Amino acid sequence: MSQKAWAVVIGIGPGTGASVARRFAKNYAVALLARKPENYEPFVKEINDAGGKAIGISTDTADGKSIQSAFDQINKERGSAPLAAAIFNVGGAFIRKPFLELSAQEYEGGWQANGLGGFYFSQAVIPLLLEAVDKTEHPPTLIFTSATAGLRGSANCASFATGKFALRALYQSLAREFGPKGIHVAHAIIDGVIDIERTKHYKFDHPDAKISPDAIADSYWHLHTQPRTTFTNELDIRPYIEKW
Amino acid sequence: MSQKAWAVVIGIGPGTGASVARRFAKNYAVALLARKPENYEPFVKEINDAGGKAIGISTDTADGKSIQSAFDQINKERGSAPLAAAIFNVGGAFIRKPFLELSAQEYEGGWQANGLGGFYFSQAVIPLLLEAVDKTEHPPTLIFTSATAGLRGSANCASFATGKFALRALYQSLAREFGPKGIHVAHAIIDGVIDIERTKHYKFDHPDAKISPDAIADSYWHLHTQPRTTFTNELDIRPYIEKW
Amino acid sequence: MSQKAWAVVIGIGPGTGASVARRFAKNYAVALLARKPENYEPFVKEINDAGGKAIGISTDTADGKSIQSAFDQINKERGSAPLAAAIFNVGGAFIRKPFLELSAQEYEGGWQANGLGGFYFSQAVIPLLLEAVDKTEHPPTLIFTSATAGLRGSANCASFATGKFALRALYQSLAREFGPKGIHVAHAIIDGVIDIERTKHYKFDHPDAKISPDAIADSYWHLHTQPRTTFTNELDIRPYIEKW
Amino acid sequence: MSQKAWAVVIGIGPGTGASVARRFAKNYAVALLARKPENYEPFVKEINDAGGKAIGISTDTADGKSIQSAFDQINKERGSAPLAAAIFNVGGAFIRKPFLELSAQEYEGGWQANGLGGFYFSQAVIPLLLEAVDKTEHPPTLIFTSATAGLRGSANCASFATGKFALRALYQSLAREFGPKGIHVAHAIIDGVIDIERTKHYKFDHPDAKISPDAIADSYWHLHTQPRTTFTNELDIRPYIEKW
Repeated sequence: MSQKAWAVVIGIGPGTGASVARRFAKNYAVALLARKPENYEPFVKEINDAGGKAIGISTDTADGKSIQSAFDQINKERGSAPLAAAIFNVGGAFIRKPFLELSAQEYEGGWQANGLGGFYFSQAVIPLLLEAVDKTEHPPTLIFTSATAGLRGSANCASFATGKFALRALYQSLAREFGPKGIHVAHAIIDGVIDIERTKHYKFDHPDAKISPDAIADSYWHLHTQPRTTFTNELDIRPYIEKW
Repeated sequence: MSQKAWAVVIGIGPGTGASVARRFAKNYAVALLARKPENYEPFVKEINDAGGKAIGISTDTADGKSIQSAFDQINKERGSAPLAAAIFNVGGAFIRKPFLELSAQEYEGGWQANGLGGFYFSQAVIPLLLEAVDKTEHPPTLIFTSATAGLRGSANCASFATGKFALRALYQSLAREFGPKGIHVAHAIIDGVIDIERTKHYKFDHPDAKISPDAIADSYWHLHTQPRTTFTNELDIRPYIEKW
Repeated sequence: MSQKAWAVVIGIGPGTGASVARRFAKNYAVALLARKPENYEPFVKEINDAGGKAIGISTDTADGKSIQSAFDQINKERGSAPLAAAIFNVGGAFIRKPFLELSAQEYEGGWQANGLGGFYFSQAVIPLLLEAVDKTEHPPTLIFTSATAGLRGSANCASFATGKFALRALYQSLAREFGPKGIHVAHAIIDGVIDIERTKHYKFDHPDAKISPDAIADSYWHLHTQPRTTFTNELDIRPYIEKW
Repeated sequence: MSQKAWAVVIGIGPGTGASVARRFAKNYAVALLARKPENYEPFVKEINDAGGKAIGISTDTADGKSIQSAFDQINKERGSAPLAAAIFNVGGAFIRKPFLELSAQEYEGGWQANGLGGFYFSQAVIPLLLEAVDKTEHPPTLIFTSATAGLRGSANCASFATGKFALRALYQSLAREFGPKGIHVAHAIIDGVIDIERTKHYKFDHPDAKISPDAIADSYWHLHTQPRTTFTNELDIRPYIEKW
């Protein structure tokens, strides 16, 4: 009997991470990575309780050794089952600050989370996704979550924007190198506020002004199901009332 | 009993048009518009034979009266059933020619098919989509099919590129005006050769180098099912081996 | 003795057109085209009075015969002197109106002024610019004036945006076809209010919030002087306080 | 008598750096920064011999202390003379390598040179440029040299592209924050091969296929002379025969 394929999601927390984990757990065993165990533990439990298969691993995105150690553990659990999907959902600390007050450490935070974290994660998953080519129902998929700041460097947002721009450069470079080898690399520009507990008090003129993380997860699943003749590499996602 | 909602697709032919028609006909009655009856007749028959509901109407995209007459007929058939989706899938005659050899008539062909055709179609469907807001399962949706030429004006392609650039301006303007009113306006950049009879002899190094029109239709359907908190306004679609 | 080279500017009026005319008239004989004689007459007089050489021709941008007749006249005046530069500075009637209230005629106005006008003008000047290759001090140059609406389709601005997007497609197509033949094709995105009599009452928080048309003309002249090893194809221009 | 204003150029070497140094040295005292003294020494000597004023300082772009020490020296030399212009011309080590063979150190090289180097340089010069507002003939100017890789992440170029994308995010963020305070922040996308000794053996079909660094310097000077009503924030530069 063929083994259940796996998906790995880094950047778990209430919101997009949890919704993506739940959605992919309907079809795959899932590995949920976040720095703090309290960010993935409830979802690991929820998925396992519901009859799915989930493991959680404390991982520091910007630390290559931490990522490698997480994948050692995933690979032991995974055995010979293929890795069908990998989702990079790291936000990165958002800092809004006048440029001249920004420390080098604060400024580099955006790069470390997205530019460097994206690198370590991609180097860990791409060899596994390459192995899975032609062995999974859907093309092996690597999706990056980005933000408006991936397209636009706003005043007082140099740290976040440089990280997200770098992530977009990385996705394009990977899509162009590994697309022809059968891996679906995609980039989602999330343009708006996600509807989670933390944003409950954000007031808008419309009651449904915030993005549904479950709907983002549905779009990521749709991306994953696209055949390799018909890949979407980039899409935007925003609420109907968003100014853009 | 509530009536079946409708979808209208303009630019029917073997390829994206037919696939979108089939996909939306699974849930909706469909009106299939094309200039030449032979372009929609086989699909109208196919859908009706399979237990769906389809009508075909000969329509000239770039002629406001022809569009209006088509919608008079659709509205008579539709009765009080809502219009849930409208897809603009007009290619426009592709002309590759040195600029100085291009006649004004040839040059204007791109505008007439896409810029002007998009205008007439949008003016006909938007009032119907506005009526359908909050009355359909999914947000009323208007999708435009575009091409790489909507993002890039290549040498010797002035006619096609000006039409597709204009269509992109139109979609953005409509998305920004009617998104906040609950209509999902989306734009798909199809970057590659569609896999149809007419392109069968196009040779590529890979056997699966051409875009599946059925997979495009799946993506259009996915766009249609997005809730209004979570709209994708633009996405690209290309084969895994495409250079971009 | 070698004859003075010519420049032709279409879309003359107080503002960018007049400033560009004055700047290029320092080095070239200039032909100033506009629909209404009162739009070019003062500048023709001013340039001739100052010892330069200028002619004015009433021309309808969106009418191929009118453009052709203007160039018949220019060519007669020009004799064997080369055409060194051509500037397309047509604004096009700006209409801000809800999409559903826009008539087809109003909508097509943007296309006619920019998409179609740009075509007729380019077909008239490119053969003359090709003749001038290697015969003028600076590479023969064709510059298009555009606006923010060439990059962004705003709500209620479908007519203007479709015309300006089409113009951008046209410039790209021409730059890619005729750049390698030695013509410098460039596109300037003017993002802000021009400082002219008509905008005098526009109030801003800063006294110097409006674009100087003379400074635009200096940038156009700089573009013209770039050697063909070092062409700028696109640049933006905006006041320091502009939000973008 | 008022003191001569200063310009500082980081990333000196034969090519754009030297040409920009020479051009700005016609009007300003110049500080030329590069890691290796042999990269700036010939140009410092040349400018001083020609009656200009130049100093050279060995500086490591990606090291905040090294940058700070360079500016301590510049400020001592400068006295109360204003800093009129600063040019960031750091290329960054270009690495073309399959992604899976890239070490973290190689990958981070692009960020360190451009993302981090741009940060340190900007934090050093912006306070000086702010002091110079309204005290110099032309608005105080900060120009970043970028490349096609700032707009496009190519296969096998993840290091260079992430660094250049980050630099573009940085420039946009700075232009939006400091433009309204009177600093002209600009970004030049150099798309092609620069014509220098090192590229002499690159063969093209055309004899003049390489970008003139002197012409780049002329464009940078033109940017610097734009009044603040009329700033160009971004422009591209490429040879006439370049494919784009």
